[in-house]
Amino acid sequence: MALTADRHRVVVVGGGFGGLSVTRALAGADAEVTLVDRANHHLFQPLLYQVATGILPPGLIAPTLRHVLRAQPNAQVLLAEAGDVDLDRRLVRIMKPDGRLADLRYDSLVLATGATHSYFRRAEFASFAPGMKTIEDARYLRDEILSSFEMAELATDPRERAEWLTFVVVGAGPTGVELAGQVAELAHTVLPRSFRDADTSEARIVLLEGAASVLPTFGPRLQRYAQRQLEKMGVEIRLNTLAVDMDHESVTVQGESGGETIRARTRIWAAGVRASPLAALLAGKLGVQADRAGRLPVGPDCTLAGHPEVFAIGDMVSLNGLPGVAQPAIQEGGYVATVITARLTGQAAPGPFRYRDRGSMATIGHRRAVVEAGSAKFTGTVAYLLWGLVHLVYLIGWSNRIGTLYSWACALYPSRNRNHRLISFHAAEGEVAGQRTLSRAIRPHSASAPTGRSDGR
Amino acid sequence: MALTADRHRVVVVGGGFGGLSVTRALAGADAEVTLVDRANHHLFQPLLYQVATGILPPGLIAPTLRHVLRAQPNAQVLLAEAGDVDLDRRLVRIMKPDGRLADLRYDSLVLATGATHSYFRRAEFASFAPGMKTIEDARYLRDEILSSFEMAELATDPRERAEWLTFVVVGAGPTGVELAGQVAELAHTVLPRSFRDADTSEARIVLLEGAASVLPTFGPRLQRYAQRQLEKMGVEIRLNTLAVDMDHESVTVQGESGGETIRARTRIWAAGVRASPLAALLAGKLGVQADRAGRLPVGPDCTLAGHPEVFAIGDMVSLNGLPGVAQPAIQEGGYVATVITARLTGQAAPGPFRYRDRGSMATIGHRRAVVEAGSAKFTGTVAYLLWGLVHLVYLIGWSNRIGTLYSWACALYPSRNRNHRLISFHAAEGEVAGQRTLSRAIRPHSASAPTGRSDGR
Repeated sequence: MALTADRHRVVVVGGGFGGLSVTRALAGADAEVTLVDRANHHLFQPLLYQVATGILPPGLIAPTLRHVLRAQPNAQVLLAEAGDVDLDRRLVRIMKPDGRLADLRYDSLVLATGATHSYFRRAEFASFAPGMKTIEDARYLRDEILSSFEMAELATDPRERAEWLTFVVVGAGPTGVELAGQVAELAHTVLPRSFRDADTSEARIVLLEGAASVLPTFGPRLQRYAQRQLEKMGVEIRLNTLAVDMDHESVTVQGESGGETIRARTRIWAAGVRASPLAALLAGKLGVQADRAGRLPVGPDCTLAGHPEVFAIGDMVSLNGLPGVAQPAIQEGGYVATVITARLTGQAAPGPFRYRDRGSMATIGHRRAVVEAGSAKFTGTVAYLLWGLVHLVYLIGWSNRIGTLYSWACALYPSRNRNHRLISFHAAEGEVAGQRTLSRAIRPHSASAPTGRSDGR
Repeated sequence: MALTADRHRVVVVGGGFGGLSVTRALAGADAEVTLVDRANHHLFQPLLYQVATGILPPGLIAPTLRHVLRAQPNAQVLLAEAGDVDLDRRLVRIMKPDGRLADLRYDSLVLATGATHSYFRRAEFASFAPGMKTIEDARYLRDEILSSFEMAELATDPRERAEWLTFVVVGAGPTGVELAGQVAELAHTVLPRSFRDADTSEARIVLLEGAASVLPTFGPRLQRYAQRQLEKMGVEIRLNTLAVDMDHESVTVQGESGGETIRARTRIWAAGVRASPLAALLAGKLGVQADRAGRLPVGPDCTLAGHPEVFAIGDMVSLNGLPGVAQPAIQEGGYVATVITARLTGQAAPGPFRYRDRGSMATIGHRRAVVEAGSAKFTGTVAYLLWGLVHLVYLIGWSNRIGTLYSWACALYPSRNRNHRLISFHAAEGEVAGQRTLSRAIRPHSASAPTGRSDGR
């Protein structure tokens, strides 16, 4: 790359909240910053569930990294995947989209590759219960959710129809609560008028949670509020309950009152995350132990043991027990930029990273949300408006903010429609030009056995 | 399906301009209308090129058929593909998304399955030069166009970089002209500030046309205007020129001044369309001859020979030499509804279908367009505004109209950004969960040979 030979080179891997934060905070630094990401866009993950449920178009929450950084001359964006780091020679090995490899030399390195969803030790669940971490995941989930209603309309057997209208969400953290609430609103409020044979208002949305309450990280009053509101919206909540088995047509759960198999053609995974594989790779190189979620331990200044020039931030690291949400990543990014800048200008290093807790929030449905900030707690319409305001502020770009506000308005008035309800066709294996199919049709079971068994099995 | 047993049953196949037009026009008829489409949405094809170039999100031009027809109680939408018609038993054989088959009985049948792009007898061109007829096509094209610039930024060899910055559009009808103009605006106006190593303002956009002028169906003055404007925007136009060969890295053209091979990593097909396969299937059943574009001949009242209860309309039929655009399909749909309604109410049949030519228009770029309506002809800003107004009027739904207007405003002011510039990851063959790749990487040639040959071959 055409970098000035003698300037300090910072390589940032990952354009999420952490990576983008450090890159932008280095705008004034006497350094060349190269931001590497395998996607061409940042992703505002907190609104991803609204893509999965047809409210927002993906573009509004996924501004291209290039556009975000267009006015920062010392930053360059490369679309590539970082596969390995040579800590001794200070090189990042990247793979370009066409499969070719290249090495990027760094003076400072910031790793911010985030996390992906985790199925714990049940990797086979991945094909039965898709999770949601990327735009592609959200689109796939949208296809799954929306095509379930279509299949219900086409079904001729009432038991099969009921199965298509049963949705199981695994995990009642903010993402699970938000998804369950939105699927309930879709089924019970938005869609009924559009269907003739299927009564989508009869759809069952089952929310499974292994802990004793929904939103386990929130205070008890907000937990009770969230549970009550979800129940009012028609969501069935099963606490202290785990998904122990599943296939394409059912989930087997194990709770306090024993086990049960729920017939459900759509299952959504919102139960756990795991640090990106780069964390384990580096833990191995450094001879340190990643934690249970695969996260890399870092020092109080976010550096790797024995490598003060290498920083790791965000969801891929474990640091002071901070949660895997946007705020720690953003604040760590800003902090790392001050450390690098201090070194470049010969100033004293800042003290260790200190997290400022700005609270947490989750939305449940229309005018139903919870907000917790220090001792202040809000629910209902006030929380809903606060939630909306904060999310608009943190979105990048005025045109995306106004576009999002507009999409929200369309989802409420006048017809409670959702404008972005496309179901995509996926290229099937052995595809020939022009022959494409729905995701429902390329599932392993559909080739061998029709899904419409009328024996209700 | 839960239809009233004794009501007249109309089955409409295809939810494009024609199929949706006939369905809506039957709202007041004493009939049950079943609209079958393999997509869950209508598609406003005239703006599809704006999805392919990052201006519009797909949802705004692809409202779900269900939502459009939600307030029409006598209409039901089924997400399925029509594979065959039994003209004697009056049955349409449909395939549901899970592969199961079902038969729909009809009293009246309206076929409106449109057209797809055609590579004439060079089917192998399909993998080298994608065309654009569906939302999936447009997204794929967007991936191709945008990732070319990304590859140019990553390239280290100047010749390879130049190849990534060369785009060949085959066909200079309205779609080809619009795509070439938009790629030029992207490369020369929108993107330059976002790239560091690649100078996108040097991108070459080559527009090939087999006829003697661009926009062959327009008048000579507008053709000259369009050509001049395209050239001002930096589009190289090659008239009387055919693409005679291509691979993943080049196009060989044959023109008046001989042959040439243009090194170009991105090729776009906008050269021809062919009626949907159902047209040929029915021609075979009826013993009639489809025309060169595979279109089914119909009678002056849009019915099939010997089957007054079966209508075919839009791009899949040949009737009075009408062009394959929205207006004939819309008007034929309305006409067929009046024929069916007349029969149901015992009124006299209306005369043969008569087309009212409302003119044609194409946009070239910002404040550059051509409009032809009877003897009135417009160019420049006036035509541009007329074009925008007409397209907004024909879009379905106020929220889509306002959303589209907003997206257009964002594309012009303040930063000439395009908000919907996502590049998607595609599941590669033999995909394991979480491992996805760019379309660039799953091309046949990239597995066997790296694309970055520095010998400039």
